[in-house]
Amino acid sequence: MMAHRIDALQYANWSEKIFRQMREGGVDAVHVTIAYHEVFRETVLNVEAWNRWFQAYPDLIFHGRTGDDVRLARETGRTAIFFGFQNPSPIEDDIDLVEIWHQLGARFMQLTYNNQSLLATGCYEDDDTGLTRMGRQVVAEMNRVGMVVDMSHSADRSTLEAIEYSSRPIAITHANPADWHPARRNKSHDVLKALTDAGGMLGFSLYPHHLKGGTDCTLADFCTMIADTAERYGVEYLGIGSDLCQDQPDSVVTWMRNGRWTKAMDFGEGSADNPGFPPQPGWFRDNRDFPNIAEGLIDAGFSPDEIDGLMGDNWLRFFDRSFGSADG
Amino acid sequence: MMAHRIDALQYANWSEKIFRQMREGGVDAVHVTIAYHEVFRETVLNVEAWNRWFQAYPDLIFHGRTGDDVRLARETGRTAIFFGFQNPSPIEDDIDLVEIWHQLGARFMQLTYNNQSLLATGCYEDDDTGLTRMGRQVVAEMNRVGMVVDMSHSADRSTLEAIEYSSRPIAITHANPADWHPARRNKSHDVLKALTDAGGMLGFSLYPHHLKGGTDCTLADFCTMIADTAERYGVEYLGIGSDLCQDQPDSVVTWMRNGRWTKAMDFGEGSADNPGFPPQPGWFRDNRDFPNIAEGLIDAGFSPDEIDGLMGDNWLRFFDRSFGSADG
Repeated sequence: MMAHRIDALQYANWSEKIFRQMREGGVDAVHVTIAYHEVFRETVLNVEAWNRWFQAYPDLIFHGRTGDDVRLARETGRTAIFFGFQNPSPIEDDIDLVEIWHQLGARFMQLTYNNQSLLATGCYEDDDTGLTRMGRQVVAEMNRVGMVVDMSHSADRSTLEAIEYSSRPIAITHANPADWHPARRNKSHDVLKALTDAGGMLGFSLYPHHLKGGTDCTLADFCTMIADTAERYGVEYLGIGSDLCQDQPDSVVTWMRNGRWTKAMDFGEGSADNPGFPPQPGWFRDNRDFPNIAEGLIDAGFSPDEIDGLMGDNWLRFFDRSFGSADG
Repeated sequence: MMAHRIDALQYANWSEKIFRQMREGGVDAVHVTIAYHEVFRETVLNVEAWNRWFQAYPDLIFHGRTGDDVRLARETGRTAIFFGFQNPSPIEDDIDLVEIWHQLGARFMQLTYNNQSLLATGCYEDDDTGLTRMGRQVVAEMNRVGMVVDMSHSADRSTLEAIEYSSRPIAITHANPADWHPARRNKSHDVLKALTDAGGMLGFSLYPHHLKGGTDCTLADFCTMIADTAERYGVEYLGIGSDLCQDQPDSVVTWMRNGRWTKAMDFGEGSADNPGFPPQPGWFRDNRDFPNIAEGLIDAGFSPDEIDGLMGDNWLRFFDRSFGSADG
C-alpha cells in the first residue's frame, strides 16, 4: 500500500479548487496555519471559517486531531486538516489557553514567528536569549496536553533550548538545511543534529526563498539535498512541509511579515525590489505535484520504504506519538 | 442496579469539599453553569478554571461530554461535569460560536436569562416577542451540533416558540410548575404541556424562591408536587435540576441578577428586605442530600423504576439523544 502522504505546512487562500487539488495529489493530511499574528478571538474566527469549510465540503476535507484521522482520511478518500499557529499570539499571555486550543484541535504552535515573543526569540532578532520564563512553562504545558513545539521561525539558541527542555520530540515543520542554502530561515547543522538526535522532525520547505536557486531550483537539486540530509541525520526524521501559500495576494505576505508590530515596512526574506510571494518552481506548483517529489526521490536513490517515510509515514508516526496527552 | 443520579443545574462556589459531597450523595453527573453574563473570552476563562479543577481532582470529577460519560462516572466512582450557560452571552453576536462552544464541551444554553437577549425574551420583561431572527437561526444551529436549548429563565411565548421551532426536544433544567407555586420563574401549564408533549425535560428546582413555602417547604410537599406533575405530564419527562448555589456569597446573586445591564439594583426573585441567597430547606442542604429526595419519592408512592427515572435515568436518556450532532 502507498504511504500516507502528509504536508506539514501550508497556508493557502483556501477554496474548493485547492481541496480538490489535495485529492488529486493524494494528500491525506495537511497541517494548515490558522494564525500568524492573530490574538485568541481572531484565531477563533479562523476556526469558525474552517468549520464552515468542513460543513461545505465534507466529501473532501475534515478536521484532523489524531494520527488515526490520517488513516481515516485515506480510507474515506478525503484530506485531514490539522491546525497550527506560526506564532504564540493565540494564547496571548494565558498559559491555560494551551489546553483550550488543544480542545479546539490545534496541534502545532511555533514559539515565535520572526520576532521575540513572550516565549522565545525569532530568527530575525539581533540577540537570542533563549526560552523565557513563560516559554519554559508553556513548553511543559504543550508537552502535557499534546501540542507540538514548532521552531521553524525561531533563532538557534531558542531552538536548541526548546529541544533540550521539551520532554517530547519537537518539530521544524518547514525549513531546509542552511548548509545547502544559507537563508536566514534555514537551519544550522547544530540545530538539525540536536533536533533529530532527540527524535524530532524536519519538514523540507518548497518556499522559493528556502531553495538554492530560488524558483529555479530543480527537482533533482531538491531531492539530492534530501538525500544528503538523510545521510547526515537519518531518513526517519524527515518529511515534507511545503510552506505552500497558494493563491494568496501579496498583501498576505506583507501581513505575515509586518502583523501589527511595525510602522516601517519589513520585507522579511524578500526585499523592496522583490516584496511579494516568489513564483513556485514548475515541478511544485501546488498539491497536485506531490507525485513529482516521490518520483524525484526515486532518482535520488531512495528505496520505496524510505520514500514512503519521506512522503508522509515519518510524519504519521510523529503524529501518533505527539497529539495525545502525556498521561496517555 | 441503582439509577444514574443526575443534577441538571448547579452553580456552587466550587471546591474540593463540594466535589467530595457529590460523591457522598452518589451524584454521577452535574450540569454546571459556566456563564451568567460573561462574554466569550470571560467564559473561556471559566473553562480554564474548570480545566484546573479537572487536573487537580481527577479522582473526583472529569469533563462530561456524552451520556456515556455519565456511565463512565458511575463505573469509576467520579462525577461527570457538564457545562452550560444561563444566557447566550458567550456566543455574543456570532452564530459560529455555537459550534466552537460545542467543541469546548458546552451542552446547554439558555436562550435568555431574565431579560431580552439577542435570541428571545426573558421572564422579567413586560412584553414577550418570541424568538428573534437570530434566535431562530441559533436554535437550528444548536440542533445541528447537539447543544440543548434551555428555557428555564425565558418568558412563555418565547418558550413555546422554542419548543415549536426546535427540531429536537428542549429542556427547562430548573423550575417548578406555577400551578403549585406561582413564582415568576415557575412554568405555566401550557408551557409544561407543550414541553413534555415534544419530548422535552423538566428539572425540579430546590431553590427556595421556587418552592411553595420557600425554605420551609417540606420534603413531602415537594415530592407530592412531583407526583402531581408526573400524573399530568408523564413521569419520564421529569428529573432534578436543583439550582443549588452552595457556598456562594450574596455578591454572586447580585451578579446573576444585575450583570452589567443596570445601574439601579435589581432584586430578581428577592427584595430589598431579602436581597441575598435564601437558606436551603433542611432536607436538601447540598449534594449529600440526594438520597433524601429518593426516600421522599418512595413515600409519595412512586415505584422503584419511576424513582430511578426521576433521580437521573430520565436525564440520562435525554443526554444520550441530545449531545451528538444531528447528522449522527
